[in-house]
Amino acid sequence: MKVDDHHYRSIWLEDNAPSVSVIDQTLLPFEFRIRQLRSTADMVDAIATMVVRGAPLIGAAAACGLFLAAQENPSDEHLEKSASRLLTARPTAVNLRWALDRMLPELLNEPITQRVEAARVGAQKICDEDVSINSRIGAHGLEFLTQHCHLAQKDMPFNILTHCNAGWLATVDWGTALSPIFKAHDAGMNIHVWVDETRPRNQGASLTAWELKAHGVPHTVIADNAGGHLMQRGQVDACIVGSDRTTRSGDVCNKIGTYLKALAAKANDVPFFAALPSSTIDWSIRDGISEIPIEERESIEVTHITGADEKNQLVRVRLTPEGSQAANPAFDVTPRDYVSGIITERGVCDASETALLSLYPEQAQKRRKSQPIST
Amino acid sequence: MKVDDHHYRSIWLEDNAPSVSVIDQTLLPFEFRIRQLRSTADMVDAIATMVVRGAPLIGAAAACGLFLAAQENPSDEHLEKSASRLLTARPTAVNLRWALDRMLPELLNEPITQRVEAARVGAQKICDEDVSINSRIGAHGLEFLTQHCHLAQKDMPFNILTHCNAGWLATVDWGTALSPIFKAHDAGMNIHVWVDETRPRNQGASLTAWELKAHGVPHTVIADNAGGHLMQRGQVDACIVGSDRTTRSGDVCNKIGTYLKALAAKANDVPFFAALPSSTIDWSIRDGISEIPIEERESIEVTHITGADEKNQLVRVRLTPEGSQAANPAFDVTPRDYVSGIITERGVCDASETALLSLYPEQAQKRRKSQPIST
Repeated sequence: MKVDDHHYRSIWLEDNAPSVSVIDQTLLPFEFRIRQLRSTADMVDAIATMVVRGAPLIGAAAACGLFLAAQENPSDEHLEKSASRLLTARPTAVNLRWALDRMLPELLNEPITQRVEAARVGAQKICDEDVSINSRIGAHGLEFLTQHCHLAQKDMPFNILTHCNAGWLATVDWGTALSPIFKAHDAGMNIHVWVDETRPRNQGASLTAWELKAHGVPHTVIADNAGGHLMQRGQVDACIVGSDRTTRSGDVCNKIGTYLKALAAKANDVPFFAALPSSTIDWSIRDGISEIPIEERESIEVTHITGADEKNQLVRVRLTPEGSQAANPAFDVTPRDYVSGIITERGVCDASETALLSLYPEQAQKRRKSQPIST
Repeated sequence: MKVDDHHYRSIWLEDNAPSVSVIDQTLLPFEFRIRQLRSTADMVDAIATMVVRGAPLIGAAAACGLFLAAQENPSDEHLEKSASRLLTARPTAVNLRWALDRMLPELLNEPITQRVEAARVGAQKICDEDVSINSRIGAHGLEFLTQHCHLAQKDMPFNILTHCNAGWLATVDWGTALSPIFKAHDAGMNIHVWVDETRPRNQGASLTAWELKAHGVPHTVIADNAGGHLMQRGQVDACIVGSDRTTRSGDVCNKIGTYLKALAAKANDVPFFAALPSSTIDWSIRDGISEIPIEERESIEVTHITGADEKNQLVRVRLTPEGSQAANPAFDVTPRDYVSGIITERGVCDASETALLSLYPEQAQKRRKSQPIST
């Protein structure tokens, strides 16, 4: 999408250099800075410290990380070790494993001398595919919005609430939850977005608001506490969120607080959608609550916050009494019963195993193959 | 309650001076400072800027404000004008009106020369009554906790989640939602409190955590987003919140975000209690959603936040992109269906008109008297 009328992706391979460029998302919305990553260690650090974040982007970043690893040393041993290091940078991200599982065997099949080029081609392909997938998610989500937008009163915007950042910065381009919103806005629809600030890391207030502002989409930032009240008063027409990991039954694991919005949506008859690429679907698990481990992040993300002071200098301030401890579960699980629909690159479906398998029949086939023959 | 082993109230009349002392709650948890208020204007400002906040304390503050007004000029005109000014300082607070409706007619009945002393006595009485009421709320809440605490496993704490600050700082002493918690802790129960930080003003992270720490109650600060997840995983045994205004049917208007926690409590079979003095019950209204106007506060409370930098200096930082707007509804309404019980100074009851009237039968009598005789 555009920044100062210049088109950017959130990550790209430099043409003539052994480096990967990313937008440093820890500095937004206060500063727009490109960072060059030149080693596997740089990429592991960028993923762990959330310089790059968002499930699809993390997958692309892991692929680009393997390209950097191949530059360092294309041996089997180094590539395998690098993949392991990349994998541990964010334990919850299923895309990380997906990208590495796809790219590593391909690389190991190549002769040593051709691995750098193969890694470049492989990483570029994963990035391009992500853009294409997100564009299709946007197109399918747009169909839904087109069907429902006419329900909004004349001269009144169609109000969408979103949580965290599932925008283009969370992907290589377009975004997932925001992709239909960008497409609807570009199509001339009267769209307004309620942006949950999304404590503790404030990805909504910092990244989603920044993206929408840069693209010119009307939006209003709210405290995470406000969404239920707005739904109760009829001021939200739909919720669209992303997903970090989705079970085959349609349970959605997304940024902490998503579940609370889904509860409010259900109680107030507001449709609640998760927009996600199929790479975030973990077909091996069914029950999100018992089967998805929730990353517990550092308590300093709750006790402290970073913002810009009067001189636009970034300052980290403490919010809690010295000595009070804090807990910081990073994700929660929204059970499928609270999800009105799942928007994927192949279309929109119910949050159920049957519906997801009807969009992805090859997964049913895989499952059948892996089941022992009953006698 | 205690601060550095010294007993404080949140507001008190100075013995030999025409002034009222308050703890400046805008500086907590970073600095403990007492402020002297010497005029009605000082008190209006203290209420409006939340130097004093919390429904019961606002009532006591209004009473003390009338004492300051009487010092300035005990005429009918000045007292009436001062009461009007105090009333507009926080539009949602029903206690403000309650305290003024009680004290003003009493003062106007006194001869001019005795009004200063009468105002002192009246304000002191309202303060002392508040302490007594909150102590009784604590005792009734403690009964509930005693009945349920044995359900907690041995060596596992009984986990209570609270939102915003309904502690002693929100009242003259003891608090409402925290009163049972202080009493349970003092009685030797193994209690642990999940403290919602309560954006945008962070009264949980700053005030509730500070109170609990000062009193030695084990607690953990969490982002407002985390409570649903914790309830889903069985880590919350009960929720106790305060109330700024309660309808006669048991709808609870409290700090924005309370409703989301009530939805999660209901979905996960966690008992959800509102602890409140009967002065916050507005017997004239029944439906909280349609009848309670919600205060919309300045957007800067969402776009900016104040904390302590490395040198413990208070710094206000911006969190959102320049030019992104923000909305800031300050309260929400939790419908009675989501409230397991209401803890009052007269006991615990269901959230229903019948149950509340059974605790406060004099209100039924008042209603009967005010209804026209049917023919």
